[in-house]
Amino acid sequence: MFPPLQNDTFLRACLRQATDYTPVWLMRQAGRFLPEYRATRAKAGSFMGLATNVDFATEVTLQPVDRYPLDAAILFSDILTVPDAMGLGLTFAEGEGPRFATPVRDEAAVARLEVPDMSKLRYVFDAVTSIRKALGGRVPLIGFSGSPWTLACYMVEGAGSDDYRLVKTMLYQRPDLLHRILAINADAVATYLNAQIEAGAQAVMIFDSWGGVLADAAFHTFGLAYTARVLAQLKREHEGAIIPRIVFTKGGGMWLDAMGQLDCEVLGLDWTVNLGKARAQVGEHGPRAKALQGNMDPNALFANPDQIKAEAIAVLNSFGRPHMDRSQTGPTHIFNLGHGVSQFTPTENVEALVRAVHAHSRSMRTAQV
Amino acid sequence: MFPPLQNDTFLRACLRQATDYTPVWLMRQAGRFLPEYRATRAKAGSFMGLATNVDFATEVTLQPVDRYPLDAAILFSDILTVPDAMGLGLTFAEGEGPRFATPVRDEAAVARLEVPDMSKLRYVFDAVTSIRKALGGRVPLIGFSGSPWTLACYMVEGAGSDDYRLVKTMLYQRPDLLHRILAINADAVATYLNAQIEAGAQAVMIFDSWGGVLADAAFHTFGLAYTARVLAQLKREHEGAIIPRIVFTKGGGMWLDAMGQLDCEVLGLDWTVNLGKARAQVGEHGPRAKALQGNMDPNALFANPDQIKAEAIAVLNSFGRPHMDRSQTGPTHIFNLGHGVSQFTPTENVEALVRAVHAHSRSMRTAQV
Repeated sequence: MFPPLQNDTFLRACLRQATDYTPVWLMRQAGRFLPEYRATRAKAGSFMGLATNVDFATEVTLQPVDRYPLDAAILFSDILTVPDAMGLGLTFAEGEGPRFATPVRDEAAVARLEVPDMSKLRYVFDAVTSIRKALGGRVPLIGFSGSPWTLACYMVEGAGSDDYRLVKTMLYQRPDLLHRILAINADAVATYLNAQIEAGAQAVMIFDSWGGVLADAAFHTFGLAYTARVLAQLKREHEGAIIPRIVFTKGGGMWLDAMGQLDCEVLGLDWTVNLGKARAQVGEHGPRAKALQGNMDPNALFANPDQIKAEAIAVLNSFGRPHMDRSQTGPTHIFNLGHGVSQFTPTENVEALVRAVHAHSRSMRTAQV
Repeated sequence: MFPPLQNDTFLRACLRQATDYTPVWLMRQAGRFLPEYRATRAKAGSFMGLATNVDFATEVTLQPVDRYPLDAAILFSDILTVPDAMGLGLTFAEGEGPRFATPVRDEAAVARLEVPDMSKLRYVFDAVTSIRKALGGRVPLIGFSGSPWTLACYMVEGAGSDDYRLVKTMLYQRPDLLHRILAINADAVATYLNAQIEAGAQAVMIFDSWGGVLADAAFHTFGLAYTARVLAQLKREHEGAIIPRIVFTKGGGMWLDAMGQLDCEVLGLDWTVNLGKARAQVGEHGPRAKALQGNMDPNALFANPDQIKAEAIAVLNSFGRPHMDRSQTGPTHIFNLGHGVSQFTPTENVEALVRAVHAHSRSMRTAQV
């Protein structure tokens, strides 16, 4: 149905297989830092107008892949499409973050929640298929969703928050209500990601953007447990190909031991994590050893190209030389930022970054030990 | 000069000495959640009007100590008084955070910076002495400052920030400029805290509120190194009493090994840290073993009193039983929140918390092992 894949570097690295160089893509690579994105966004009128239109979503997903030699594309969408399909009414006011018209704050609202009919998310699955075709096999396509906890934050708060007071009040005062929200979110996210896989996504990523705001004990009970519930329901392969699963918890470096036990292939790491230590902790050995994705500070892209190159090399070196034996699996690294690329990033600096990652990671593999 | 101290539980715990119960105080305990604070604040007209008036600062520092059986008082002031004294023009607009009229963003502005004349901070030292007298020895008084890095964030950004783009652009593009700011900040903070000690502060705390936004390598170079530079210059005792030094890095739990090597007595921990693990890592053994302070989620105070009690007990139990041998030092815990108390906290919930900490920590010491 789709053209054969020409660059499997990203997928191989996800599966801890040796590659000739370290693959690189950037969170939020299809976004506002690109002038061509801003042009399409202007045509679409609104953010949701962009995300729900298959042609626009295809166009902006391909823009960074056309411009830079990236090793993966990621579906252009939002992490909050699932609660929108639950009827909460997602909007993006100009210059503000997401907002829900109908937040979920009391027992009655929680009782009304259910796993949404996936037909309401048809626009996402259609976009996945359209993008897969448009990519023509150049690089693999990553699908994604917000994590159950991160969705719950927005669903209860109704918008972004400085202190997560409303959702945490529910957590401490009515944990039963929050558990119900999270269980529904987990089952909805799993169904949603499986439908993306069926539509053509070749890897899936769970963005736990707000996992890091939870207290230690609460992270395990309200965060990780429901991410695990999603993972347990995900399709392991599709049409003969294994579908790697990536989990990214911003601010979750503290809990790497527990995340290392998740049933997934890749852990995304933010810039506060030491990649070498993380490799020793969860990337090197054992039946659940994972590929690691990350973790340059997005703000490093505001330096000059030579400095960016030095920073990219420092990140690659902090992970160290990946394994190179094609007969077995071993430690692998997927280069990324530690969070989304800033809208203020100069486009030429991303070019410098991608070239530096490719060049240095090749030289790491051929250098004398 | 000052009345003798009647409750040394907090100071003993800072020095890893056995106590009959776990001392408790709350970051931002002198603050907006108290109606009596809001009344004084209204009289003062502005936040800086409150902070710079010795009588008002004394009044609000004592308010939480009068209301609750807390084991320490903390100077009412702001973490940004030092850059204000450098001439940057600190203001607090109603409903907003701090703002500097003259941010430090270029080479010329950095060149102009110097350690301020401490006479400009006289109002702080006068407040310390006034509070010490007003406390009458009931509990010890903690002085404080922002860390060099945290001050630099505000000095360069000019205000709070979502992404720290300006200060991090300087970090990655002109590290020489940032190093100069940090060196001046470190020497200024050390001088400032020493003057607080001379004025009567019985312990000092360095708030590294934004350390956790730094990338792993940058935290060590631009964060911790300058906190260490402050610590190295601090007075170790005053009028025969040891002055404990507390370092609190919000979001710094990832770097506990490195922070465990700091030359200070206490580490403050936010709610993402597992206290039991932190105790094993930095609180139990060795010449640099430290007392631990923290770390209940401030949002837990929005639950009901029984739930707050259960949460306080969970935090105490996660640290475990402190050592009880008065003939030697050993692991100790100072109960606190993981960050400042929220302005929306019901006052009676703080009462429930303080009572639960005292009662349960006494029972932990007498229970059969």
